[in-house]
Amino acid sequence: MQQMTQTGPKTREGSVGVVETQFLDLPGPLPLDCGRELFPVRIAYETYGSLSPTRDNVILVCHALSGDAHAAGYSAAPPQESARDGFGADERDVAKKAGLGWWDGMIGPGKAFDTDHYYVVSTNLLGGCRGSTGPSSLNPATGKQYGTDFPVITVADMVRAQRAFLDELGIESLHAISGGSLGGMQALTWAVLYPSRVRHIVPIASTHALNSQGVAWNAIARHAITADPDWQHGHYYGTGRAPLAGMGVARMVGHITYLSASSMKEKFARRLQRSDDIAYELTVPEYEVESYLHHQAGKFVKRFDANTYLYTSRALSYFDLAREYGGGSLAVAVRNIEAKTLLICFSSDWLYPPENSEALAQALEACGKSVELHVIDAPYGHDSFLLEEARQIPMIRKFLSDEL
Amino acid sequence: MQQMTQTGPKTREGSVGVVETQFLDLPGPLPLDCGRELFPVRIAYETYGSLSPTRDNVILVCHALSGDAHAAGYSAAPPQESARDGFGADERDVAKKAGLGWWDGMIGPGKAFDTDHYYVVSTNLLGGCRGSTGPSSLNPATGKQYGTDFPVITVADMVRAQRAFLDELGIESLHAISGGSLGGMQALTWAVLYPSRVRHIVPIASTHALNSQGVAWNAIARHAITADPDWQHGHYYGTGRAPLAGMGVARMVGHITYLSASSMKEKFARRLQRSDDIAYELTVPEYEVESYLHHQAGKFVKRFDANTYLYTSRALSYFDLAREYGGGSLAVAVRNIEAKTLLICFSSDWLYPPENSEALAQALEACGKSVELHVIDAPYGHDSFLLEEARQIPMIRKFLSDEL
Repeated sequence: MQQMTQTGPKTREGSVGVVETQFLDLPGPLPLDCGRELFPVRIAYETYGSLSPTRDNVILVCHALSGDAHAAGYSAAPPQESARDGFGADERDVAKKAGLGWWDGMIGPGKAFDTDHYYVVSTNLLGGCRGSTGPSSLNPATGKQYGTDFPVITVADMVRAQRAFLDELGIESLHAISGGSLGGMQALTWAVLYPSRVRHIVPIASTHALNSQGVAWNAIARHAITADPDWQHGHYYGTGRAPLAGMGVARMVGHITYLSASSMKEKFARRLQRSDDIAYELTVPEYEVESYLHHQAGKFVKRFDANTYLYTSRALSYFDLAREYGGGSLAVAVRNIEAKTLLICFSSDWLYPPENSEALAQALEACGKSVELHVIDAPYGHDSFLLEEARQIPMIRKFLSDEL
Repeated sequence: MQQMTQTGPKTREGSVGVVETQFLDLPGPLPLDCGRELFPVRIAYETYGSLSPTRDNVILVCHALSGDAHAAGYSAAPPQESARDGFGADERDVAKKAGLGWWDGMIGPGKAFDTDHYYVVSTNLLGGCRGSTGPSSLNPATGKQYGTDFPVITVADMVRAQRAFLDELGIESLHAISGGSLGGMQALTWAVLYPSRVRHIVPIASTHALNSQGVAWNAIARHAITADPDWQHGHYYGTGRAPLAGMGVARMVGHITYLSASSMKEKFARRLQRSDDIAYELTVPEYEVESYLHHQAGKFVKRFDANTYLYTSRALSYFDLAREYGGGSLAVAVRNIEAKTLLICFSSDWLYPPENSEALAQALEACGKSVELHVIDAPYGHDSFLLEEARQIPMIRKFLSDEL
């Protein structure tokens, strides 16, 4: 465990300490699914733990829709808002203020991704707005920010960028890849695209494809942004106006889909915001849950780029293992996977429901693959992935240490 | 059954035929929960069947968020869009084009609300935009449309307006009141406020109070509208701009909450809109479900007023029998009810979940009231209320004819 100076934030047991986000420029253009190429491509990343001399102890963690490379430890330059609140886990305000990484509970000495043994690498995804190349990056063709001239990307494109990045680090193969939600989609895609390069994958609260309802929620979120006149067809950079209102609505929709109806009832009930009675106000929040949504939206729009939200949401909706790699069959799509798979999902997650992980496990089993599925009984909906770490840790530790 | 002319739309078996919406102005000011009074108040209404000489065969039907007074038969002046598609029941396009009422399957000779026996009255709710006084009506104080100068109203205010309206018709007591969703809230409120004036209530797919998640969806829908700069703080009338974009987002959110995840999967799966492959388009709908949402939003904004949506959504969220009439206790709130109650709800309705109807039934039972609860196993979510008429009809007919 690293020691902290007296003046820095206090360490917790098992913290990786203070970390700094680093940047790497890929040496050549990145070919994309849409047929275009992207150059230059910069990847923002952090690492935790030590790379073994044989470079065989690498774990890649992949973030979800609104995350970034800062997955563990304390940020050297704490942002005002952390990607840790990407899932409404606002109980951790203290942690956030200290610039704690979004998956700090899982990454560190003695944790699920144990930095005493593994070299954990976390990148900001392609299309991101937290250091990696995305729509807010400069377009070399125009000298201005891409905006919607940025190519439409896929989860596979994100994975190709990660591979090119790891090639630059001299890392040939991965002990494991893990992530929740969209992060789990990246892990699955890695195992399909580069079967010989990854030994374990741990997709958490993820799926082989969003259901129709998930596609619909994402469409609404994107529409809320693009219908905001301040979006300006995506070219809002430098205009002094950004689609903050639309982003706020998108974030509100996201938040509810990350929670469960019962956890919302538990947390907010129908408690009024200001008194024992309603105030007959049309637009002012009257209920605690209304204030909560406005508060979350307000925080999010300060730290996130609307175009990154659009591109990432689009990639999330496109993702479909069966369509992309199996001609419509999930079993065909996964038949080349060599990695051992640990799937973790949550009983109350209606956005990434357990039935999807079950379908994926069945497809893997049907092909004779090694797959383990845990449906954790937890009430917090999709958010459980970040809130129910204690039960995931022993599962993951055991899975990663199990060499048959 | 009325006969139609050759040139009019064809009648169906059991149709009430061609009907015309009528209007009535209340004689005096309407006192409101917020402490203000409203005057003048006009009520748009339709009637089906014949009033008995003793005026004891009246059934009041109450519409939901986006409905209107045109509940049954063919409109004499068919609107371009019907309130019937208020719940995404777009399978009935033919019926809608003929101007069919939103509850035509339930109202007519031999139907649930049998016009061979009952005189069915349907009003557009207070705050509405389809003939009754609402925020798009002229404010006598300014000579301009109210906009957000319209007072914030409650479900009880809607019920008070209905009572004053029925007083004008010379109707003292009601054989029954029924409605789905917000309509059911009006039925419940009638039974609490005016126990001696109503003999049966049939709240369908309704609740004694929205859950936290329902409050949240409504808050998002309202925020999408009020964050649209074209809303102009509610004073958009006559400006040539209306918050159509925000309304569209609100409607999209509403639509998904009216469906169930499984019925969406059944209806849309992940079918692409235009080809066998994705088109790498950021903003153009790629999936059928995306096109569906855009289509529904586009239709809705043509026929509905944004401020009415705001006020009605607010009333819907406020509604809370226990808070309003029971000092926090549902059992106390319902103890003065004299009407017999038939509650119908649907297994897949996650917006108005069966557990709420069950809680209401328990509270009524605890007070020794006559209550019957049917949970219909149906896959269409909240929409089931309009799509599963066949199973409701015999329940309602039996309930209404049962005089102990």
